[in-house]
Amino acid sequence: MSSFGEIFRVTTYGESHCKSVGCIVEGCPPGMALTESDIQPQMSRRRPGQSKLTTPRNEKDQVQIQSGTEYGYTLGTPIGLMVQNEDHRPHDYSETDLYPRPSHADWTYLKKYGVKASSGGGRSSARETIGRVAAGTIAEKYLKEAYGVEIVAFVSGVGKIEMESQIRQREAEDTTSSGDINGKFYQLIDKITREDVDSDPVRCPDSETAVKMKDEIVARKEENNSTGGIVTCVIRKCPIGLGEPCFDKLEAKLAHAMMSIPATKGFEIGSGFEGTRFTGREHNDKFVSDGNGGLKTVTNNSGGIQGGISNGEHIYFRVAFKPPATISLDQNTAQYDGTDGVLATRGRHDPCVVPRAVPIVEAMAALVIMDAVMIQNARSASVQRLAPVPSELKAIKPF
Amino acid sequence: MSSFGEIFRVTTYGESHCKSVGCIVEGCPPGMALTESDIQPQMSRRRPGQSKLTTPRNEKDQVQIQSGTEYGYTLGTPIGLMVQNEDHRPHDYSETDLYPRPSHADWTYLKKYGVKASSGGGRSSARETIGRVAAGTIAEKYLKEAYGVEIVAFVSGVGKIEMESQIRQREAEDTTSSGDINGKFYQLIDKITREDVDSDPVRCPDSETAVKMKDEIVARKEENNSTGGIVTCVIRKCPIGLGEPCFDKLEAKLAHAMMSIPATKGFEIGSGFEGTRFTGREHNDKFVSDGNGGLKTVTNNSGGIQGGISNGEHIYFRVAFKPPATISLDQNTAQYDGTDGVLATRGRHDPCVVPRAVPIVEAMAALVIMDAVMIQNARSASVQRLAPVPSELKAIKPF
Amino acid sequence: MSSFGEIFRVTTYGESHCKSVGCIVEGCPPGMALTESDIQPQMSRRRPGQSKLTTPRNEKDQVQIQSGTEYGYTLGTPIGLMVQNEDHRPHDYSETDLYPRPSHADWTYLKKYGVKASSGGGRSSARETIGRVAAGTIAEKYLKEAYGVEIVAFVSGVGKIEMESQIRQREAEDTTSSGDINGKFYQLIDKITREDVDSDPVRCPDSETAVKMKDEIVARKEENNSTGGIVTCVIRKCPIGLGEPCFDKLEAKLAHAMMSIPATKGFEIGSGFEGTRFTGREHNDKFVSDGNGGLKTVTNNSGGIQGGISNGEHIYFRVAFKPPATISLDQNTAQYDGTDGVLATRGRHDPCVVPRAVPIVEAMAALVIMDAVMIQNARSASVQRLAPVPSELKAIKPF
Amino acid sequence: MSSFGEIFRVTTYGESHCKSVGCIVEGCPPGMALTESDIQPQMSRRRPGQSKLTTPRNEKDQVQIQSGTEYGYTLGTPIGLMVQNEDHRPHDYSETDLYPRPSHADWTYLKKYGVKASSGGGRSSARETIGRVAAGTIAEKYLKEAYGVEIVAFVSGVGKIEMESQIRQREAEDTTSSGDINGKFYQLIDKITREDVDSDPVRCPDSETAVKMKDEIVARKEENNSTGGIVTCVIRKCPIGLGEPCFDKLEAKLAHAMMSIPATKGFEIGSGFEGTRFTGREHNDKFVSDGNGGLKTVTNNSGGIQGGISNGEHIYFRVAFKPPATISLDQNTAQYDGTDGVLATRGRHDPCVVPRAVPIVEAMAALVIMDAVMIQNARSASVQRLAPVPSELKAIKPF
Repeated sequence: MSSFGEIFRVTTYGESHCKSVGCIVEGCPPGMALTESDIQPQMSRRRPGQSKLTTPRNEKDQVQIQSGTEYGYTLGTPIGLMVQNEDHRPHDYSETDLYPRPSHADWTYLKKYGVKASSGGGRSSARETIGRVAAGTIAEKYLKEAYGVEIVAFVSGVGKIEMESQIRQREAEDTTSSGDINGKFYQLIDKITREDVDSDPVRCPDSETAVKMKDEIVARKEENNSTGGIVTCVIRKCPIGLGEPCFDKLEAKLAHAMMSIPATKGFEIGSGFEGTRFTGREHNDKFVSDGNGGLKTVTNNSGGIQGGISNGEHIYFRVAFKPPATISLDQNTAQYDGTDGVLATRGRHDPCVVPRAVPIVEAMAALVIMDAVMIQNARSASVQRLAPVPSELKAIKPF
Repeated sequence: MSSFGEIFRVTTYGESHCKSVGCIVEGCPPGMALTESDIQPQMSRRRPGQSKLTTPRNEKDQVQIQSGTEYGYTLGTPIGLMVQNEDHRPHDYSETDLYPRPSHADWTYLKKYGVKASSGGGRSSARETIGRVAAGTIAEKYLKEAYGVEIVAFVSGVGKIEMESQIRQREAEDTTSSGDINGKFYQLIDKITREDVDSDPVRCPDSETAVKMKDEIVARKEENNSTGGIVTCVIRKCPIGLGEPCFDKLEAKLAHAMMSIPATKGFEIGSGFEGTRFTGREHNDKFVSDGNGGLKTVTNNSGGIQGGISNGEHIYFRVAFKPPATISLDQNTAQYDGTDGVLATRGRHDPCVVPRAVPIVEAMAALVIMDAVMIQNARSASVQRLAPVPSELKAIKPF
Repeated sequence: MSSFGEIFRVTTYGESHCKSVGCIVEGCPPGMALTESDIQPQMSRRRPGQSKLTTPRNEKDQVQIQSGTEYGYTLGTPIGLMVQNEDHRPHDYSETDLYPRPSHADWTYLKKYGVKASSGGGRSSARETIGRVAAGTIAEKYLKEAYGVEIVAFVSGVGKIEMESQIRQREAEDTTSSGDINGKFYQLIDKITREDVDSDPVRCPDSETAVKMKDEIVARKEENNSTGGIVTCVIRKCPIGLGEPCFDKLEAKLAHAMMSIPATKGFEIGSGFEGTRFTGREHNDKFVSDGNGGLKTVTNNSGGIQGGISNGEHIYFRVAFKPPATISLDQNTAQYDGTDGVLATRGRHDPCVVPRAVPIVEAMAALVIMDAVMIQNARSASVQRLAPVPSELKAIKPF
Repeated sequence: MSSFGEIFRVTTYGESHCKSVGCIVEGCPPGMALTESDIQPQMSRRRPGQSKLTTPRNEKDQVQIQSGTEYGYTLGTPIGLMVQNEDHRPHDYSETDLYPRPSHADWTYLKKYGVKASSGGGRSSARETIGRVAAGTIAEKYLKEAYGVEIVAFVSGVGKIEMESQIRQREAEDTTSSGDINGKFYQLIDKITREDVDSDPVRCPDSETAVKMKDEIVARKEENNSTGGIVTCVIRKCPIGLGEPCFDKLEAKLAHAMMSIPATKGFEIGSGFEGTRFTGREHNDKFVSDGNGGLKTVTNNSGGIQGGISNGEHIYFRVAFKPPATISLDQNTAQYDGTDGVLATRGRHDPCVVPRAVPIVEAMAALVIMDAVMIQNARSASVQRLAPVPSELKAIKPF
């Protein structure tokens, strides 16, 4: 299905060559200030044609609110959001349509549906993510106003150039005794802003690494090839208590959200795959008083989530993106009918998707946190009307 | 919530010290042979006390079908499944209850619910996974009978000992020109059976690596510590066309399922994080005729899913498990009230969860595929009653 | 939420004074011929200004497909549907805004959301039903092409003039011995077409009754008052086996659907409330051979559904609509602040909604049946891949 | 599916002859006192064998909490509830199994599933309602503690003897000028308690009518026949603002819930079908100050819901139950193979279900209101963290 979320829910529509793309956002709290100008900035960060690192197509992607607001405030009713497709004619038949493009959705869509959109994948077009980003900005605006939540994603890997592993490697040499695998990386995610991220078009906040990444992307572009990359995201000031114990653990929802972004191949949270190499003694995040009657953890290998539930520490995770399948190189591959041949793709494409994926990752993170906030609010507001549990039941209530 | 799936759906219940744990399975096709003996083998692979590598507790975990079958066949109605908890008294108050255990769910549950189960996490107990495994075996039985689907998981990493990376490294030296990052690893997952996996209690099919892994686990156990690990899983003969284009891509559902298993920190499919280091030319999976009127891919960096939809190739993925948080070492950590102290955990625990996690990963994989099969059957059966699309509409129907 | 259905699902958006109203339809089978011309006829039957019996406003309500089709065929992807609102300026403040209108949603919306749309209810406007009707036509088109399903609704009551009770009363005198409470009424629903229904603007197929109904509506209109009414609907050639045994019985879904239409106060299926006055002997629908290896029932007091599941007989039900709350008469009622006063509503309104409700009832019926078809197809297609149940198990399989 | 509710959700399992029946309740607020003694009273009101008016079978129906509580308080985790089936052997083959019982689910289940439970309907057995009642008591307990909600159902019709219409008819003579169609009926539902209802085994609070109803039931029983009936339910002190504007109007959810109870044929709320006979002027519920800064309505033809949202007045509705299909009279009806014959049912059955249906109606009402409370709490708690809407925006916020 094309819906995401339980209480704050987005439903998207649109292919690459239809009249418009967009979404309906259900469950937005009423009385929140909201106009197109709140949504457009992330739309613009996502759109193509921003720099020489992205596809040269230049689409405006102006979002229009169809419903759900009046006088600049939300009504609590569904918010319809739409972006016109500038070229909405179905694609003309051409020689390349004889071939399912390698590592694209052409073949699987045809097998799934029995028909396929004229432009190949259609629904698998990156334009499908417009609705996600639009909806995500609304979630994000609420989270910021209500809880001060900050969500910042950035490019941490392009091809073989990985920012995080470099920082972690250096850090590992200094901090083996503490079991802290975070160090300088953690200082970075503690402070980083979208302004920092956007200071370079590759959207990597480490300027030395950014230069190498740009060189890598340009090199792939010049050879008509493409490269993969990694996006890291941090969520700061997330309320404590979000997520459900069993199937809907907060990290499971984040994984679902991130792995639903086109071209993703992996997700890891906190210590991630590297955490499997540690011992429990090294990996455990010990508690200390936070000075306000609560607790915080000394380290944060857990990535801000324990037992599937947010603990108030920074939530951080990494998302792997494969190299774009569309390349301008001849490929030996079969036609739909099984005949071997040479597919000669021509045209414009992104040599690397991660710079443009940054706002998409942020949007999906916002959608997950927003829905979890509303579900937890349903519970906590309901509890407040009950008589308190007797204090002598220490086993179930330690204070 | 404690439900998973849309049409084939499991809902679980149970904490570590309640009367029973179990689940309700909705949507199972009627008329399928099913008795407890179909379910018990995976329950037994999951239960504790199987070898010196796991916790010495010895629970029988006998599953009882409550409803939904008669004379050994499913009726199509909800299947109630139950396992008695042998010790179902609430836990007595003790000194250690003053402390939220580091990297456990004690603290987050208390903040989420305002109360906590006597034994700490309660619902976060590994006993919660019993219902998943029971439900998964039913899904798996259908998938095998109806489509011949084979799901096999195995341990590919324990601490710093990683089977896959070793195989991949060796392979990479031989196959750089082909862009095939799979090689011997791929030969392994093409043939591996559960019997192969269970030939060693560590459940790593590479016998040399298995020996090192066992040494590692025993060493951690003797120092009262624990270690992390990785489980790899392959799904063979998966029907083509499963998964939805947008939010419910098949890999997104698999990621959700796997990241909902306790102690998981990462998920990657196909080429995964390593795939980000490749170029598009290397990474693309070119098509060739499969000799039966369809297509197959030469390589399988996609991991059997393209555009969110299964393509008939093997689906394979890796799941990262952190080191168990329960260790028998003194830990400097704060009490619930913020006072610093030393938590001295005593008792029995798993030094490494991955051998027992193998059937849980298989169960969750089966649940994802089963639900996707039924959703796709809803569509494909509905299409069959429509008149065919006119053949001249080549753009939307190439044959 | 603003979504309806599990597999074939519609999500609507729009208030009375926003830019557009519309919906997203998920789950439509791919490869079905579909253009705006399939949708528009029911839109036009729903729109205001059709006759002197409805509100004199004259809106075109031209539907535009935004996505999900190409070359006139569905792609299987979400279908975006939109109708522009011709007057989309928020309503100006006026004296009447001091009053919550009696039996309108003004007061409850304000208490629910804390804000309210400028025009009062906003989302409670009848324009919200545009998305339902548009989505319903798509469901209906599939059902007709795939199964020959026929859905026809008509007006059976206006104020105190009730067509069905008159027919039933006459019939009851003739057929008391058979327990058949249907008789001439049943002959009517067995044959009735939309053309029959539309032969009179009041949409009552019994011409004598229609005259009286029109007189009643005109009389209420002239006194600036309004009147209630009843819509009866029949679904013919519904596939057998639709609906779920427990919470999602087919009649429960139909009741949910119908009672979600604005202004409805009651729903009854088959013998309905009158059926409570019968004995089991009179009410039971006995079986006879249908001549094709199956069974049919002699009577149909069940209304085509037994145990929550369709049995292949005609499904028929009645829906009660209250008199429209908007009247052009002075009403003594309190302001928002509790002050007593006189609300003097002026303007245009429907004196009776049932003629325009006919296509809305049909649309909601189509949405329910379509979703049930797809869910049942998921099951029945899945069963077909299993080995048959052994024939000696007579208790579970009588043939 | 066998689940009901979004946030507070019950999933049931069990047929008539399986080991146990029961349910899982998800989403219950933590920290609420709850033991079996809270649940058992309604279970006992539902069970058979209570009086000569019900089936003479005598089952204990003792409920056991499996999980989700400790020391008598809820943990916030899923609550497993189970009742052992005392006779859980599959039914032996007999002559009557050649026949699908008229107006039972035997035929439709067989066509739906391809198999059928040994006892006929199996899942359609009234034992399926045990899980509903158990879950409903938990919802009800919360609603009472948190909001003082009172839910009372009673029998208002048995065969041709209808309590409400009699009261309404008398009342109508006195109150035609006010447009109040409630009168004495409304006084009754304003005060009625479960004690009042249970003062007579027929569960009709009007003692004169109760005598006639008992005579009617006994007469039907003695002739081995059965009779239909009507249950009326009132919900008092329901919070304002529950329900959703579009598809999930509160009355639509109530209709869904009630029409999912076995043997129901109709649902009406407030003025119901009779309301269609009124004019808008008569039917509109005018507002007056409630003396506490809010508003109340002078009449309550709306039945406590306006625009799909509760307005704080009493919610009241009626549910029609057909005569039980199981009768001990010979019936001329076809066998599964189409052969005509005589089905001679023998054994014990309820001559009228409405006395036992009373707690089932109450349970389903509680489940609907509870889920709506939690969904509304999600919204209202979320709104509280936003800055207030500027007061000059009078059009969207009149105070």
